[in-house]
Amino acid sequence: MSFQLLHVDGGARRGRLVTPHGTVETPTFMPVGTQATVKTMLMRDVESTGAQVVLGNTYHLMLRPGADRVAAFGGLHRFMNWPHTILTDSGGFQVMSLSALRKIDADGVTFKSHVDGSMHRLTPESAVDIQLKLGADIQMQLDECVRLPADAEAIARSVTISLDWGARARRTFLEAGTGRLQFGIVQGGTDPSERARSAEGLVAIGFDGYAIGGLAVGEPQADMFATIDVTEPSLPATSARYLMGVGTPGDLIGAVARGIDMFDCVMPTREGRHGMAYTSEGKINLKNARFATDDTPLDPAIDCHASREYSRGYLHHLVKVGEPLAATLISWHNIAYYQRLMADLRDAIAAGRFAEERARLAAIWGGGEDT
Amino acid sequence: MSFQLLHVDGGARRGRLVTPHGTVETPTFMPVGTQATVKTMLMRDVESTGAQVVLGNTYHLMLRPGADRVAAFGGLHRFMNWPHTILTDSGGFQVMSLSALRKIDADGVTFKSHVDGSMHRLTPESAVDIQLKLGADIQMQLDECVRLPADAEAIARSVTISLDWGARARRTFLEAGTGRLQFGIVQGGTDPSERARSAEGLVAIGFDGYAIGGLAVGEPQADMFATIDVTEPSLPATSARYLMGVGTPGDLIGAVARGIDMFDCVMPTREGRHGMAYTSEGKINLKNARFATDDTPLDPAIDCHASREYSRGYLHHLVKVGEPLAATLISWHNIAYYQRLMADLRDAIAAGRFAEERARLAAIWGGGEDT
Repeated sequence: MSFQLLHVDGGARRGRLVTPHGTVETPTFMPVGTQATVKTMLMRDVESTGAQVVLGNTYHLMLRPGADRVAAFGGLHRFMNWPHTILTDSGGFQVMSLSALRKIDADGVTFKSHVDGSMHRLTPESAVDIQLKLGADIQMQLDECVRLPADAEAIARSVTISLDWGARARRTFLEAGTGRLQFGIVQGGTDPSERARSAEGLVAIGFDGYAIGGLAVGEPQADMFATIDVTEPSLPATSARYLMGVGTPGDLIGAVARGIDMFDCVMPTREGRHGMAYTSEGKINLKNARFATDDTPLDPAIDCHASREYSRGYLHHLVKVGEPLAATLISWHNIAYYQRLMADLRDAIAAGRFAEERARLAAIWGGGEDT
Repeated sequence: MSFQLLHVDGGARRGRLVTPHGTVETPTFMPVGTQATVKTMLMRDVESTGAQVVLGNTYHLMLRPGADRVAAFGGLHRFMNWPHTILTDSGGFQVMSLSALRKIDADGVTFKSHVDGSMHRLTPESAVDIQLKLGADIQMQLDECVRLPADAEAIARSVTISLDWGARARRTFLEAGTGRLQFGIVQGGTDPSERARSAEGLVAIGFDGYAIGGLAVGEPQADMFATIDVTEPSLPATSARYLMGVGTPGDLIGAVARGIDMFDCVMPTREGRHGMAYTSEGKINLKNARFATDDTPLDPAIDCHASREYSRGYLHHLVKVGEPLAATLISWHNIAYYQRLMADLRDAIAAGRFAEERARLAAIWGGGEDT
């Protein structure tokens, strides 16, 4: 109901997702607002890039400032000044990647905060509750992420437990009756049969959308694409599909070609903080001495204040002397570039010329290969 | 010619300074853009606060990216996206405060860069040349700053050398015939007769404005006010007077009462980066736990995005978790507060009610005492 499939061109999909805080045109890229802020940026500047949805991290927000605190401020939208759609993850991924200690049992996961060493617990039910308090328009079920490579037993166990947790999360979420959206998460590592079992189990439970989790953990791009290829047939065409934590422009191009509708990644902002810019002509390192005397704008092809109003030479100077404005401007441009990339892909799918557009962009970024 | 005195109310002056890049209503506060950026802020956001002039630091800019480089980019205005008035200092103060090694001779000063240890030299003539290359609308003569407290001999020597350098700087500047402005700098520590000798010597040379230097180096506020009191009678009423490196709101209030027209200080931005906000009700530390649950805006009395659109609780969160956006928002608000303070003082002087306005503001900030 919330997702409308507008056009299909080969494997690529042009869609529209409606949430309590707005409409999201897909394929879409969601900037990451980890701690209730997209690092170094004003939310109105994030909005200016055309972003329609941002991601918040349950793990970080439950630790600081806490879900009840955010709820007391009227939820994450109001707290961080973002009136549009917000998706929150369930915390499962950061529990794996950040916590020094985590212990999983059938009921949930107990972990040690990376901030102050305090002990916390997440269950499928409490993760729903926390995300309700945060006010997420789209929330994610709690899942168990395994580190890759993992043996078959560990992968099968994570699929089984994630399916059980998915059913419990769905029940809790539906009982709350909020009119918001909840997505299940497909696990299964790089094992095709486990991916299919996971996807089919989630579809049987019935979510508002389906995510592919457990990727973007350092595996080769070909493995990621292959995993999408084996998972996608088990997902209903009428629901949104979200590839979590991905990725480079080439990753996005190849994944859109495989039917993915939604993405999130820290890359544009993290790389922006290190002087790396994604431009219409490729990735550049503004620290490089060749930019010291470059009086051209960062990327005149992108309709964004940060892309057009500052010379590469000025940005080089800011990066070299360690001025925080460098991070702000390059992050801003990078998000604008990612939004433009997604808009170009959307337009091409709608016009039935996705193959050409993919080839044009893949010449710069990769992602043009069929596996 | 460049400065017009519009109103006088007691010792306070309401004026207008015209430069090649705009009109500056005085008394004015100049945000500091040390390295061709007001730290953590977009220049368009600085502009939104009502700031009409910003300061650039010759010492920093001559080291990185270098005056010739800035000139190649069309000057500092274009390089940093600030189309309004720019004042640059001469580098003398940072040579004293930042360089690990400096050696003064009659002709100039040789110093070691704090960045890479390379050796550099400034003379009265080269400081003019560098500031011309930077494109400053208002440039400052090279002076010798002494660290306070200093003995009488050191103070007298710095006055003598600064007068000699002032004459040389003025000659070089006038030969360039740019139509820009140049200010002399009064030295003399806290010695009234040396301050008078310095001021009278500079007036005899004839500058476009006069600065009081050698203060804001840790001396008590009463000493600073006393030094203004003994210097001001030697300065022509028809020229702008600039108190360098000052200060707190109380410093500004007391100095405006003593006839100062221009100020610059890193305080609003430096304090902003440490979670300290100057508000209409006084200074607050947003790290303080009492703000964690505070849902009110930072300062609704100030017409500024950063002051009105974010709760104190949100800013507390950003400061506590170390998010860069905290520095951006609080710096922005602080500059907006400083601009509002100066606008209130200007309006009061024009309306002949400076004494009441000074009393109102001094109740919050100090600066109400006559020495």
